Amino acid sequence: MNDVYIHPTAIVDAHDVGEGTRLWAYVHVLHGARIGSHCNIGDHAFIEGGAAIGNNVTIKNGNMIWEGVTIEDNVFLGPGAIFTNDLYPRSPRMPSAVQRYSDRANWLVPTLVREGASIGAGAIIIAGATIGRYALVAAGALVSKSVPDFALVRGHPARVAGWVSISGQPLEFSDGMATCDGQTYRLRDGIVEIQE
Amino acid sequence: MNDVYIHPTAIVDAHDVGEGTRLWAYVHVLHGARIGSHCNIGDHAFIEGGAAIGNNVTIKNGNMIWEGVTIEDNVFLGPGAIFTNDLYPRSPRMPSAVQRYSDRANWLVPTLVREGASIGAGAIIIAGATIGRYALVAAGALVSKSVPDFALVRGHPARVAGWVSISGQPLEFSDGMATCDGQTYRLRDGIVEIQE
Amino acid sequence: MNDVYIHPTAIVDAHDVGEGTRLWAYVHVLHGARIGSHCNIGDHAFIEGGAAIGNNVTIKNGNMIWEGVTIEDNVFLGPGAIFTNDLYPRSPRMPSAVQRYSDRANWLVPTLVREGASIGAGAIIIAGATIGRYALVAAGALVSKSVPDFALVRGHPARVAGWVSISGQPLEFSDGMATCDGQTYRLRDGIVEIQE
Repeated sequence: MNDVYIHPTAIVDAHDVGEGTRLWAYVHVLHGARIGSHCNIGDHAFIEGGAAIGNNVTIKNGNMIWEGVTIEDNVFLGPGAIFTNDLYPRSPRMPSAVQRYSDRANWLVPTLVREGASIGAGAIIIAGATIGRYALVAAGALVSKSVPDFALVRGHPARVAGWVSISGQPLEFSDGMATCDGQTYRLRDGIVEIQE
Repeated sequence: MNDVYIHPTAIVDAHDVGEGTRLWAYVHVLHGARIGSHCNIGDHAFIEGGAAIGNNVTIKNGNMIWEGVTIEDNVFLGPGAIFTNDLYPRSPRMPSAVQRYSDRANWLVPTLVREGASIGAGAIIIAGATIGRYALVAAGALVSKSVPDFALVRGHPARVAGWVSISGQPLEFSDGMATCDGQTYRLRDGIVEIQE
Repeated sequence: MNDVYIHPTAIVDAHDVGEGTRLWAYVHVLHGARIGSHCNIGDHAFIEGGAAIGNNVTIKNGNMIWEGVTIEDNVFLGPGAIFTNDLYPRSPRMPSAVQRYSDRANWLVPTLVREGASIGAGAIIIAGATIGRYALVAAGALVSKSVPDFALVRGHPARVAGWVSISGQPLEFSDGMATCDGQTYRLRDGIVEIQE
């Protein structure tokens, strides 16, 4: 792993870390995790085996990326954002739960964060959701269902409160069209797309 | 402490840790904490002196278990769940607060998580609550009062939204009775009990 | 830095730490952070360059204090409290975001926590807010605008739910006056002040 910076206090057991990625103090990456290139992974973060992270991803301090969570390119994960991968958690050590946890098919529910999306500070993502491309989950939101591309969601549970551009700026639609940074966005039937 | 696994980066000052318990990277357990057998305590967790943890408990990464918090057997604590032990916190170093913090009786409020309960990711438990046996606190819930046995609570503040079985599955009551995993549960006057 | 206690596992790159301050296990303080005297900074906390912390401050475990955040004297930061410093976060490594993040003036929004205030466990502070003197932000609150002096705020988003004294006790006003700990507080036009 050339050109990967690993802080002296970090532990990286994974073999699959892309060039230019930096892993800071007290980070722990388990065997079997995949991390792309040019990522920045802040102090005290934890990446579990079976997690997959794309390129140019920013993971702020203390984030925990579990097995079953896939993070595409250019995503931002704010401080204290929380993922889950089990809808009915029990202690796997409880005798009456051992059998359920003996097979991932019984409990593991995946989550997908699509390209360029941002998860705000302290947001909680219930397993099974897909966060759409360039969506912006506001700080503290509780995401209990999938989020459309370019949507701004907030609240507890999270609801669509607006739309944002690739750069994260609010989009103001007029007659279903908005422009930002030289690009035109079209809103139709609750779906935002870039007009090529 | 035979048969206790302590990761090379963890610090365990407590003497009272049960067999088969595993403590992972960057964990810190202070002197005076009690931890049972066959627990799993994830990376970056912190257990304070005066905290008590039973057997078969799963504590996900980054949890902080303060003095005054008691966790019974078979409990699951999700990532980012937060306990508290003071209802009117001030900096104990502030000159006008030094006296209050000179005696635990002035500020320390206990919390109890009973057997087999699960605390979801990012849930916050206000000091003084008891989380009932096999209760399930949903991710992100703000628990400001005690939770009945077998209750599913969610929201901000948390309210009872349903009932779950020992294994964590939703219970559907008909005429006050529900069955799950071969056991019969009875709901009467807002209290669920297992029918022997 | 005489009389500063630094746990053997902590990393303190800052030069400006006041006497009597203690930094516990796995703490990381970056170059350029300023920390006053007689503070207590719990395990796994992170203090970024550009953050400023006063005297007698209590920072519970795992807190992250970013550039742009100023904490005055005698403040309490509860476990899992979260600050932010960017209202439209994107991954700075995303090619279309590199330019915005090349200049702090484009994205950095400051936050101020004033003397003696307390931030409860798991509260989230949206960048740009000022938390007033001796205010008490309840556990789990989402603070999206500034908080008046002596206010108790709670909820999602946070709203004023009452008033507290310097020592954090609830103030009960009668004819606009309340007394606590030998001091008289006056409430007028939604502003609480101490009557000298």
